[in-house]
Amino acid sequence: MKIKLSHGGGGTETARLVDEIFIKHFTNPYTRLNDAAVLPFDGKKLMFTTDGFVVEPLFFPGGDIGRLAVCGTVNDLLTTGGKPLYLSASFILEENADTGDLERIASSMRAAADEAGIYIVTGDTKVISGNGGVYVAAAGVGAAGGVDVAHISEGDAIIVSGTIGDHHACILSARMGITNNIKSDAAPLTDMVSALTERGLPVSGLRDITRGGLATVLNELAQAAGRMAEIDETALPVNGEVDGLCKILGLDPLYMGNEGKMLVAIPETYADEALRLIKHCKYGENAAVIGRFVKGGGVVMNTKLGGKRKIPALTGEGLPRIC
Amino acid sequence: MKIKLSHGGGGTETARLVDEIFIKHFTNPYTRLNDAAVLPFDGKKLMFTTDGFVVEPLFFPGGDIGRLAVCGTVNDLLTTGGKPLYLSASFILEENADTGDLERIASSMRAAADEAGIYIVTGDTKVISGNGGVYVAAAGVGAAGGVDVAHISEGDAIIVSGTIGDHHACILSARMGITNNIKSDAAPLTDMVSALTERGLPVSGLRDITRGGLATVLNELAQAAGRMAEIDETALPVNGEVDGLCKILGLDPLYMGNEGKMLVAIPETYADEALRLIKHCKYGENAAVIGRFVKGGGVVMNTKLGGKRKIPALTGEGLPRIC
Repeated sequence: MKIKLSHGGGGTETARLVDEIFIKHFTNPYTRLNDAAVLPFDGKKLMFTTDGFVVEPLFFPGGDIGRLAVCGTVNDLLTTGGKPLYLSASFILEENADTGDLERIASSMRAAADEAGIYIVTGDTKVISGNGGVYVAAAGVGAAGGVDVAHISEGDAIIVSGTIGDHHACILSARMGITNNIKSDAAPLTDMVSALTERGLPVSGLRDITRGGLATVLNELAQAAGRMAEIDETALPVNGEVDGLCKILGLDPLYMGNEGKMLVAIPETYADEALRLIKHCKYGENAAVIGRFVKGGGVVMNTKLGGKRKIPALTGEGLPRIC
Repeated sequence: MKIKLSHGGGGTETARLVDEIFIKHFTNPYTRLNDAAVLPFDGKKLMFTTDGFVVEPLFFPGGDIGRLAVCGTVNDLLTTGGKPLYLSASFILEENADTGDLERIASSMRAAADEAGIYIVTGDTKVISGNGGVYVAAAGVGAAGGVDVAHISEGDAIIVSGTIGDHHACILSARMGITNNIKSDAAPLTDMVSALTERGLPVSGLRDITRGGLATVLNELAQAAGRMAEIDETALPVNGEVDGLCKILGLDPLYMGNEGKMLVAIPETYADEALRLIKHCKYGENAAVIGRFVKGGGVVMNTKLGGKRKIPALTGEGLPRIC
């Protein structure tokens, strides 16, 4: 079989490829191939994750491939409520890549790393034939916290930390030459997670919402927790311009990628306090409680019209591809 | 400025690119951009490194891109005499890459990881346009040991763990369609380093000899140690067929890449014992003492003809490019 672009889209085709080839051969007691792994280290627990970044264009409103690489890795390391510590960056450059672009990317990575409280400590550069492409594979190490999505229970509220779909809408606009004010949400969420954990709130689940969008992440969480995620369409925060773009293009923000959004599950009693803390954070002003975990499996949405709609994970090339 | 293939060759052009763009922006107390970084972690010391693999062809006598990715990362983690623990693998696939090839690569990575005593714990897959290329960025985490090339002293013997240039000669042969028996040396050297450290030998320096070859690595060590490396041409272990190929093509094994060779610096009193231990290891039978560190700087070679030749680091595209 030949690899297709949809194998990189973050939906079920990616999942099948990972399962059938990589999981099959790599499985060991510590494997966590889609996610950050939590690992024993000399009596302590560390987190380790990796992510490849292949976005085009390299620069876009709200960020660039370097900021994405840092934020994506940092936010993944935050999903146990621990602390991101160190980042590696492996650059695969096509011939004719511009060193001025590389300098802007490196500078942006440093700024994002400083904001996120992580050190870029090691790197590598390789050059391949081609025409100017820049690809970055980042890996991150952090100290693990105690949050584990397997602890999600019935009655837990679901909070999303801001508007969904911004990054995806931004990249699509840039690719299609559409002029608007939509910006990528690329942001490190270290402060937001610290705000919750330092207050000692009993967070039961954390996940950064990236490829495949909120719908795909909710399905993964529902499966990990053995619960159903029930969300309310009217509660979903969507930026007005993003919503307009989606309506014109026939896209669903539920499936669109984000690069600075966290999903938080927390017992309902604590939901208001958590929401208040998140809203005070730099990237949390549009946070909202969007639903709850209930008995069952999968994801269901109470629609604006009063119906219920099943929300499956992203399949194949469900959306114009952005990464 | 536009990136050229020589920027990925591992010589001075790579070094300049890394210095002027990446080091400039990334520098922090922990940065170690060419090498494994040694980092504080909750009262312990960990190592963290990354490397990109872009070898063509993907499969060659003695190995494949997957075995290279594992061995390269493991051997880098061994350079403080510690223990490799965890590996991440980020795959960047071009459209039309063959899933059968991916399966062979994954299986080979697992076998190499088992041999090396490291767990592959996390991964990522992205797809870009193109025509079937497969690129792997690996990162590795390990427990740091106490070996540090800054401890290299005058009088330390220099041991190389086997014949030099095999990997480079193998890839060149495959590319040029030359039929011979040359195999890549791709191998994890975990056992070899354990053999030295478990015996408590006072190893003063360890370095895996990869891109840029023995000449480049010796120059880096000489600089880090503030000493001159003096080597004896007659003592250099070179496989007969590799030597023949080099003579025909006008290449110098000193500058050719290896993927399973360690350079060991150790006080001369212990050199014989270290050599004996290395020779008993699976990949050490052709190990040899090839020289010593003396007062001064740079690298000098006592030639077969009785002269002395200065050996600079690799510059530009000094050799046909293999990675």
